[in-house]
Order: sequence, then structure tokens, then C-alpha cells
Amino acid sequence: MSGNGFGHLFRFTTFGESHGPAIGCVVEGVPPRIGLTEADIQFWLDRRRPGQSRFTTQRREPDSIRILSGVFEGLTTGTPIGLLIENVDTRSKDYDDIKDKFRPGHADYTYWKKYGIRDYRGGGRSSARETALRVAAGAIARKILGDSIRIRGALVQMGPHRIDRAAWDWDAVEDNPFWCPDRKTAQNWEGYLDGLRKDGSSIGAVVEIVAEGVPAGLGAPVYNKLDADLAGAMMGINAVKSVEIGAGLRAAELRGEENADEMRMNEDGSVRFLSNNAGGVLGGISTGQDIVVRFAVKPTSSILIPRKTVSVGGKDSDILTKGRHDPCVGIRAVPIGEAMMACVLADHVMRQRAQCG
Amino acid sequence: MSGNGFGHLFRFTTFGESHGPAIGCVVEGVPPRIGLTEADIQFWLDRRRPGQSRFTTQRREPDSIRILSGVFEGLTTGTPIGLLIENVDTRSKDYDDIKDKFRPGHADYTYWKKYGIRDYRGGGRSSARETALRVAAGAIARKILGDSIRIRGALVQMGPHRIDRAAWDWDAVEDNPFWCPDRKTAQNWEGYLDGLRKDGSSIGAVVEIVAEGVPAGLGAPVYNKLDADLAGAMMGINAVKSVEIGAGLRAAELRGEENADEMRMNEDGSVRFLSNNAGGVLGGISTGQDIVVRFAVKPTSSILIPRKTVSVGGKDSDILTKGRHDPCVGIRAVPIGEAMMACVLADHVMRQRAQCG
Amino acid sequence: MSGNGFGHLFRFTTFGESHGPAIGCVVEGVPPRIGLTEADIQFWLDRRRPGQSRFTTQRREPDSIRILSGVFEGLTTGTPIGLLIENVDTRSKDYDDIKDKFRPGHADYTYWKKYGIRDYRGGGRSSARETALRVAAGAIARKILGDSIRIRGALVQMGPHRIDRAAWDWDAVEDNPFWCPDRKTAQNWEGYLDGLRKDGSSIGAVVEIVAEGVPAGLGAPVYNKLDADLAGAMMGINAVKSVEIGAGLRAAELRGEENADEMRMNEDGSVRFLSNNAGGVLGGISTGQDIVVRFAVKPTSSILIPRKTVSVGGKDSDILTKGRHDPCVGIRAVPIGEAMMACVLADHVMRQRAQCG
Amino acid sequence: MSGNGFGHLFRFTTFGESHGPAIGCVVEGVPPRIGLTEADIQFWLDRRRPGQSRFTTQRREPDSIRILSGVFEGLTTGTPIGLLIENVDTRSKDYDDIKDKFRPGHADYTYWKKYGIRDYRGGGRSSARETALRVAAGAIARKILGDSIRIRGALVQMGPHRIDRAAWDWDAVEDNPFWCPDRKTAQNWEGYLDGLRKDGSSIGAVVEIVAEGVPAGLGAPVYNKLDADLAGAMMGINAVKSVEIGAGLRAAELRGEENADEMRMNEDGSVRFLSNNAGGVLGGISTGQDIVVRFAVKPTSSILIPRKTVSVGGKDSDILTKGRHDPCVGIRAVPIGEAMMACVLADHVMRQRAQCG
Repeated sequence: MSGNGFGHLFRFTTFGESHGPAIGCVVEGVPPRIGLTEADIQFWLDRRRPGQSRFTTQRREPDSIRILSGVFEGLTTGTPIGLLIENVDTRSKDYDDIKDKFRPGHADYTYWKKYGIRDYRGGGRSSARETALRVAAGAIARKILGDSIRIRGALVQMGPHRIDRAAWDWDAVEDNPFWCPDRKTAQNWEGYLDGLRKDGSSIGAVVEIVAEGVPAGLGAPVYNKLDADLAGAMMGINAVKSVEIGAGLRAAELRGEENADEMRMNEDGSVRFLSNNAGGVLGGISTGQDIVVRFAVKPTSSILIPRKTVSVGGKDSDILTKGRHDPCVGIRAVPIGEAMMACVLADHVMRQRAQCG
Repeated sequence: MSGNGFGHLFRFTTFGESHGPAIGCVVEGVPPRIGLTEADIQFWLDRRRPGQSRFTTQRREPDSIRILSGVFEGLTTGTPIGLLIENVDTRSKDYDDIKDKFRPGHADYTYWKKYGIRDYRGGGRSSARETALRVAAGAIARKILGDSIRIRGALVQMGPHRIDRAAWDWDAVEDNPFWCPDRKTAQNWEGYLDGLRKDGSSIGAVVEIVAEGVPAGLGAPVYNKLDADLAGAMMGINAVKSVEIGAGLRAAELRGEENADEMRMNEDGSVRFLSNNAGGVLGGISTGQDIVVRFAVKPTSSILIPRKTVSVGGKDSDILTKGRHDPCVGIRAVPIGEAMMACVLADHVMRQRAQCG
Repeated sequence: MSGNGFGHLFRFTTFGESHGPAIGCVVEGVPPRIGLTEADIQFWLDRRRPGQSRFTTQRREPDSIRILSGVFEGLTTGTPIGLLIENVDTRSKDYDDIKDKFRPGHADYTYWKKYGIRDYRGGGRSSARETALRVAAGAIARKILGDSIRIRGALVQMGPHRIDRAAWDWDAVEDNPFWCPDRKTAQNWEGYLDGLRKDGSSIGAVVEIVAEGVPAGLGAPVYNKLDADLAGAMMGINAVKSVEIGAGLRAAELRGEENADEMRMNEDGSVRFLSNNAGGVLGGISTGQDIVVRFAVKPTSSILIPRKTVSVGGKDSDILTKGRHDPCVGIRAVPIGEAMMACVLADHVMRQRAQCG
Repeated sequence: MSGNGFGHLFRFTTFGESHGPAIGCVVEGVPPRIGLTEADIQFWLDRRRPGQSRFTTQRREPDSIRILSGVFEGLTTGTPIGLLIENVDTRSKDYDDIKDKFRPGHADYTYWKKYGIRDYRGGGRSSARETALRVAAGAIARKILGDSIRIRGALVQMGPHRIDRAAWDWDAVEDNPFWCPDRKTAQNWEGYLDGLRKDGSSIGAVVEIVAEGVPAGLGAPVYNKLDADLAGAMMGINAVKSVEIGAGLRAAELRGEENADEMRMNEDGSVRFLSNNAGGVLGGISTGQDIVVRFAVKPTSSILIPRKTVSVGGKDSDILTKGRHDPCVGIRAVPIGEAMMACVLADHVMRQRAQCG
């Protein structure tokens, strides 16, 4: 309830700032006797880790995860899993120039208004560094969901440049530094993003997360709807400004007969939908179709172009951020969106089991 | 935690189905000694009530609210406020035709998969009837927020037809059956929606909710971000498929220097922002600017055009919904969005007071 | 979180004051497809109802329960069950004499210090009237637990007079107005309590609640221990001042070898304990033995003997309470303790199912 | 909700087992700008630490606390405080003898029935080692409460031997290894406990915790009563079997005119009570008097006297526990009880501020 945890039955609570000694989290509610090793978590952390191409920040964090509890002889025990990542590359001096100024588009000003504290070291708690823990929690959530549920994400738009959805190839996602599912578009993005980087600027993006194999019946009809929980989860990722389910914003332009997904029986007695405008959720409850969520990530505000701001002391000023930053932070949001999807689903699987057996 | 309530310190829990004897809710956490009467709540319920123009369902529900507790001699007591609305116009026979069929685009199928129950009477708990209680809770939330915070909503798009934002006039909102802030567009929508109604079809829409006067500092930097809570709140309204804050989806196309809102000092020592792409929220915390949220509402799936579906017994079938329905349910979502904004803000005001005094 | 609900997965939230128009509650998380009628709940309410002998208050409340939602065609739907009881016998004028005075031993003073409100009508929200809703929620909890778990309560001490535990007979409990399991002691109590009643005084008591058939494994090892949740539940009943599990306070006087319950294998491969000092809970988790909880109820402070107090206006004063009251409120606490036991167990059954399948 | 945290607005979540690499916790909701150092927490941990006299277990844990986040330049930031204690003295081989047997009176059997896991290393999560984190959280809670609220605990009974309450001297508490407030009784306990230790046995005890300076108005009238929350908090401490508030169990024997605390006005316009049978709580809300809570701690079941048990494999067996244990674990429960009192009060202070300003 104090704003540092996520989920109900599957729940994780995080702590740690960008430039403190360590970040960590406690993952609660994990069923006992599930195989879990540090490598299982490290695999997903490595995908999120920055500094792997010229298109993400050059901060070099090994992000080595330690499991401190909740696992015994390779199996979860049902008790809380304590996770710890030491911070290594914390060059606070990068921040000396901006110590007394609020960076526009960042949480500096609001954080200061809320707490009366100016933690200038990389944004303190507001830093995207915290998202490593979401990815770690997501790795455990995937273990709970098992192999029958598959969660994958992709970057589907960078600035004004959308992918060609007809060219969607999940295998392509792993072959380019953008998690782009359309090989040709990925190539175009390289030059585009190099240009932005040279300008000292940045750009927004759109991420799409798809969960396959989710059974019908997860969610709830009023509050804690599956789509409402997903919206909260995705909007809670740093820099996200919109969330859509299925047809999303485009649903506003559809007529009833275009939007509602028709149904037919399969020969095996199961139901099939003839389209998926619903994005796998009707009335807050999963339909059994793919769950499809998209979210827009704004451009990072840490850029080399001077901007107008004010100082802690109340003077007009200009600012320009020299630290190590991402020209398109949307790229790094892909594994985070996947992780949040996994966490929401794991929680709802357990809630459904609790009530409906 | 069981999915029928909303909020933490300011919290309401609802019960009741569309065609049961009554719906109601319990509103908890309201500070004591606030003036509150049934008329204060009825005022907002009357705005939401259907049947007030030919553009909303002709179900005639007086929606008379009764306060059963928590108010003594005209003042809140600090104890829970029990609210009750009797259902009056529940023509269950309207639903006889569709009793054994799942309406595409509705929660019928998912509800049945979740609970193993087919409550065919107007969707049971999934009916939009429940939203009357959100409006009632929102009326109380407004009382907590007081006069310095003003929350208003408008319909800004119907199908493909957007308003002219330059023509925005809040006074116009009350003068047309669409809550449209642009008088000329409102006129055009009349003919457009009459056409759809005659076709037996329906259309989607986009709603925008604006909260003025919100102080800086509400929210939290990681989870329970103000924008994440708003996203969950709005996506949890029936038929909503997308939520945006500030620039929203358009932020994906902006460069860093276009997106970040610059700051300047006012002569009185306060800070002003030179734009509001953030929609009043940075890093999950309010900036002091207007909070701006938009959401897309899909077209109702209850239409007079036959659609393919399946029956409870597992047969392919066609369906056509004869009941009383809205050609554009987005219209009725405006007061509901306002109410959810009020509820989220009231909760965060109290959370902020608890932690930061 | 705002203090008007109980439980997590099985949760109920109550509203209503002693002298308002009605009291009610919302019961959430109930599994679907459980048979439930108003009569199932009324049965338990009738056991709690005052005015059934000369030993309980003569306030005559029929306490007729209405189910407003969550049940369709005789089965629970999985959605929240709204319950309502109209208040009938609310003689507020009984309270005119004490309107401006704080009754010692009652919540009048603390309520006023907390909320700044003096709701003199029978204690407002602090009235034991609210416990009718606990009994109603408990009736639903029993339905979830099913027939294999049996919950019964008894009065085991009235003032200084304890029952003879060797004479314990559950059948006797229904045969006397005290829920006393020892027939001979029950007879002695009659005269004792008549004497107190004639004095215009009141007396404390001890209640014992036993749950049989509870499977091993419910609870948690650290917080939300089964015994901690039971302690919170029982101490939360009006007028309760102590809670004990198993040997309880007497455990302080035991040596290690006296206290720890030894174990032996049964021929069928199950485990049996040779004693039950643990009261069915070890390390916060049920052992499979009977769960045994006891709690002490203080004497009601509403007596005919004048007592020193102060007025709202800050004057020293005397007070004497003429209303209709119980000489031993502990009697009426028996069905409430049973109900709270049922609610705690139903919640933990669902929590165990969620995590451990 | 998953059983590893405590509190609502002031909340801590713990992780870690007795014999894992470390234990830790996350403390949320702490107001910003409160001075806090590791030494502030270490002070209280050192009081709880075992091995300080021959009357507590000889396990030697330095229990050095590290603050990993939430404090910047000596002040709390309002963000979560991550705390870590490395485990040092984890002689798992002490447990080899009992690896396959359930220790009577311990959580071994119930833990195994719940999770299907036998974590034989000192009880895993059920070990009292976890309580170090409660003490750490309590140290932070004391900082929130400030100097005007004083929380102290004492051992008031060991086995059948009660203190002489007339001889109560808070200064004595620091002068003997038992936290005994009665010097003469403390001397007698030395010989008594030496005798038990030589027998290889153990004994129960009663702890009393007193909070002075608590303002009237904390708590709630129905659920989350202050006394109900305290009861849950204290019963949740390892080995606790009863909890009493004020007169407690003795209230069962009192008449109404003996029990209800009378009131009189002080000259300064404040109210004084003429007694404190209520233990500082009426109707779930603090009265402004001392909050007085007592709890009974059972004798440890780890003794050198052989006891009947069964093995994991289902055989009858005998057991005798050779590890390092406390002859009277109640002694070490004193600082833990103080800590839980501090945590409950800090949470309620913030809740009261949220709702009533």
C-alpha cells in the first residue's frame, strides 16, 4: 500500500536507488517446489542490461543477481525470495552539473515537491535502474506460469516509423538491437537512431507485448479487471504515456459490427474467435486468445540540447544533461513490459485458483 | 483484494447486478465532519443517468440514492458510508432471446469460463449499471477534494470525427447531449449518430478528463504512480480499450526537446511549465499542472445487426440484441471518467498527507 | 485498509450504525456455485439475536437478512454478496440522558477524540449491533468450509465461576441460555446472573471456540500466522480483552517437556498428537488438531450503578445508563466468536489453495 | 497479503531463513527528512542479540545491520529503506541429528504439511532469527513516533513466578539479564533458571509492553481496532500463546462498576481516568492513557530431554535437541514486543493523520 510493491498473491516489493550500494526486492507468494536458480533470473536480466549496443546507455552494470532466501536445494520453498543486485558503476560526479537544477521531463521537480528531498544522484528512486528488479520478479513469474504460457515483446514503432505488421517475424526480434519484429524496418531504424544520437536528441517508441496460451477466465468483472491491472502495470513503467489493449485507441473509430470478435465452434468443442480486437480480454476476463498490450514510451529527457529550467534556489536557468543515456529508452522497455505481463498473469492465475479452484 | 473495490485510504466496495433487487456500495476512509447529503450525490448520478436523450439507452432508472450510514446530522462521521440504489426497470424478458447465446464483444463468454455461471440478465455483474456506484463514490471524493480541485470531462472524438481543440469551450459541454466541448462538432455528431442508430449499429469514442488545481507532490515514484493508478482506474471502466496521459500515444513520435516541458519561475516564486506534454504527471508524481487523461471507449456490441456466435450448449449460432442500448456508450463514460479521477485523487491526497504531513 | 473490512481473499466490509436506517455488508471472494439462501444466514443470526432470554438485552430486532446480490437461482455467482438488515427498534430517546456525557468503559470518549463527532445514539459505529454482520459473513464462510470443518463455541467462565471441563458436553450448549457446555454450572449461573441483574450490575466472561476437522497446513510462518489472524479477529470483537490459543496464558507456567505436544504414527499412516497444548497451531500453521481459541469479554459498562464521568462540555458529572443492556455480554459473544473463526479459516483455506494448489 | 509483511502505511516486508546467507527487510512509508543512521537501528538490535548472558542461546550473531537505501545524507528520503543482516554463525551440522525428525512443539511438521518442504536448517523461515528484522523495523518506527511516545517492555512472570508489581522499577529492567522490573524477583529467577538449564529443560514466561504518551484517537471502531492490531502483532511473535490488553483475562472476573475506568476533569481542561483497566484502548481507539499489552511465551521445545516424535518417513521415534537454545525464550521476546508495539503505533499515527488530518 505504500507504493513500492506490485501484485497481490504473487507480490514483489523493491528497494534501492540508482546510486546507492545496492538494489533488491522481496518476491512473495511463490508456490513451493518450483525449480529456480540464479541463472534462471540472470538470463532475463542480461536481456535488459544496458550497454549492449551503441543504442543504449553506456552505463556498465553487470547486474549480477543473488538469491538470498526462499530457495533450498534448487527448489522454491514457498517463503519469500530475497534478491539483491549490487550497484557497481555509479559515477555520481556525472551529476554534479545538474545537482541544483531540475531536469525538464524528469521526476526531479515532483520528487522534490513531494518529499522535500533533492536526490540528484541519477534520479534516486525514480531511476529506471529499479526496473532490473521487475525483470527479476518477472523471471520468477514465468516459472510460475510454466511453459504453456509464452510472453514476448517487440518494438513496433520508433518515432513516426511503424513496422510493417505483415512482415512480423518473432525470430527477427532477437537479431537486431531494437527487438524489432520486422527485419527491414529494423535496418531503417539504425540510420534513423544514429542521426538522433549525433544530434544529442532522443525519440519515443511503441512497445507491444503478447502473451500466448493464457487460459480463459483470468481477471475479474469489475475492479482488478485483467486489462485494468495490465494498464496499471504498463503505465507504471518509467516514461510510459499510453496503454492500449487489442484494438486500443483504434476501437474509437470502429462500428459495433467491426469491433466485436465473432465466435465459432471448433471441431474439438473449443471456441474460436474470428478476430482479436479485444486483445484477449472481454469484461475484464481473459478469453483464451492472445493477450495483446501496447504502450507508448516518451523520449528520454536527458539530452545534449540545452533546455529551459529552474534551479532548486528558484532561478531561471538552462540545462543540458551530459550523463550516459539512451537515445530511445523504448528499446529497453521491451523486456520490462514482458516482465510486468508475466507478473500480472502469475498473480491472476493464483487468484483464480484461490476463488474458483 | 477480491476485485470489487477501488482505492486504499479512500476506498469504495460495490455490489449488485444489473437485474437484481438493488446495487450498492460502501465508501470508507472519508474524513469526518464534511457536509454531505443525498442531493450532493444525486446531482452527479443524474448526469450519468441514461434515457435523457435519444442518444442513450432508454432504460429508465431513477437511480435514487439512499445514504444508509456514515452521515449524522448532515456531516460525515468518519465511518463507512453505505449507499443503496434500488433497481426499478429490470425487464429480464428482454434477455430471453439471448439466454443461451454468448453476445460477441460482451463478457458473457469469459464470465461463464471464469465462474461456470451464465447470468444472462443484462450481463449480471459485468453490466455498466455498476458504474452508477462509481459516480456516487466520485461525488463523495469531490467533497474530500474541495472546491480548489475541479474535475471536468468531455467527449473529444466520436468514431473518426475529432473535435477542433482550438474551439474548446467548457461551457459548451453542458449544452449538447454528447458532453462535446466544441459546439460545431456537436452539431455534426447529431446527424452522424442518428445515422448509426438507424443502422442498428454503434460507434466508439474518446473521452478526456481534466483535473485542475491539483497540487504538486501527489503520487509515488515507483508503483502506485499517480498515472499508473489513473490508467488502472480508467481501463477498469466498462468498454475502455486505451488510456493516455498528456501527449499519450503521440509521445512516441516526439523528440526529447519537443516532449520535455520546460520550466520558468513566476514572479511570485512559483514555477510554471511552458507546455503540458506530461499531462501533469512526471515520474508518477503530480507537477501542479492540469492532470489530463484520455481514454478510448469501444462501440457497444449490443447491436441490431446479426453476428456470428456460439451457444452455451456448443452450437454455432447467430445473434442480434434487441434490448435497450446506447449507439455510443462513450457518451455515458464521461461522468464515470470524472468520478474515477476524483476517486484516485482523493485517495492520493490522503496518502500524501499520511506520509508527508 | 480503512478499517471496516476483514479478510483478504474471503473478505467482508460492513457499514451501518446502531440507530441508522440499516446495517449491511459486502462479502467478496466467495467461490461460485455454492448453494446459499437467506435462510442459511438467518439460522445463525437467530442464534445471536438478543432478547431471547432474560439474560440478554431486551432490544427486539428481528434482524431479517436480505441478500441483494451475488446469488442467482440459489447458487453463489462468485461476485460480491450484498447483505442488508433494516434497523427496527431504534429508540434513540433512551439515549437522551447521556447525550452530553461520556459513558465510562465505552467508546464514547475515544470516538469523539478521534473523529470530533459525538454520535450518542447507542454508540454509533461502536455498537455491538455491527456484529450481526459478522455472524452473517460467518454463515457464508461456513458454506465455503463445508461440512468437514465444524465450528462450535461455548461460555466456559462467568465472572469467577469456571465450568468443570470434565463435564463438557456439546449437546448441553443448546439447552441453556448461556451456551454453557456443563449443565450443572449452567444452573448455578442462572442464580448468579439474576443476582447481578437485580444489582443493576454486569459481569465478564470467557468464551471458547473450537474448530474441528481443519486440515494441517493452513496459515503462514511469519506474519498472517493462523494464530495471529485469529488473535486479531477475536480481539476485534467488542469488549474482548484477551485471546489465548491452546494452553494460552498457562503456557507461561509450563516446562518444555510439559508443553510440546508429542507425536505418534497412527496405523493408517497419519500422525496423531498426544496432547493439544498448541491449540492446533504450530509456527503459525495448523497441525490438523482442533483449533482452540479462548477470549475474555469484559462486563458491559452500561449499568444502573452511578459512575463518575465528564461531559462533552468539560464538566465533572455522574452517569447511570438506563437503556436495555446485557448483564453478561460474553453470552452473546459466543456466536460472534464462531463466526470470526469461520471467516479466518475460509480466508486461509483460499490462501492455501492459491499458493500451494 | 502473502504473509511476509506487517502494517499498512508504515509497512515492512521481511525475507531470509535462519541458515541462509542473509536476512533482510524493506521498510516502506517512512516519512521523509527524519534523521536515521545504522547506529540508530544497531542500538536496538544489540539489545535483542542472543549470547549476552548464560540465559540466552550461545549462537553468536553480530547482527550487523546495513542500510541499503532510503537514507541520503543522514535523512530518510521517503522511499523504501532496504535493510540487510548477513548470517554468520550458521552451524547447520547441529541439525544433522534431527534432519529427518519433526521436533515436537516446533513448526517442522506444519511447515512440511503446508509446503511439502523439510527445511531442517534451524527451522528455515520459522526460526526466531527473523525477529531481528522486526526489531530493526521497530527502531525506525520509534523514529517516526518521536520522543513524546515511549515504549518499554519487561518480563513480569517466569514459569509460576510473578514479579511483585508494587516493586516495579523501570530502571531495574536494564540491570538484570531478564528485563525484570523487580530487582528481588530477578535475583530469585537466576537460581530458578540455572536449575532448569541444568535439567536441560525450559520454561514459559509473560512479557508486558507499555507505551506512554500515545495520544487519544488512534485506532478504529470496528476492524483494525488498535487492540486487535496489537493482538495480531504480539500473537505473531514466535512462541506467543496469549495476548491481553489492560485487565486482560482478569476482566472476565470483574463487575461493570469495577472494570469501567471512571473519568474526571483536570484543571487544565484535559481528562484523567481514575484507573486503566482498559489498557489505554476503548472501542478500539486509544484513550490517551498508557497502552498496556501482555503476552505469554511458551517454553522452547528444543530441550535435552528426549521426547516422542515421528520421522519424515513415517516412523515413531524419539528426539532430543542438542543445538544452542534458550532456557526461557520469553526473555528475548521483550525487545521484539517493544518493536511490534512501535510498528503498530507508527502505522496508526499515519492512518489517523491521513483520515482525520
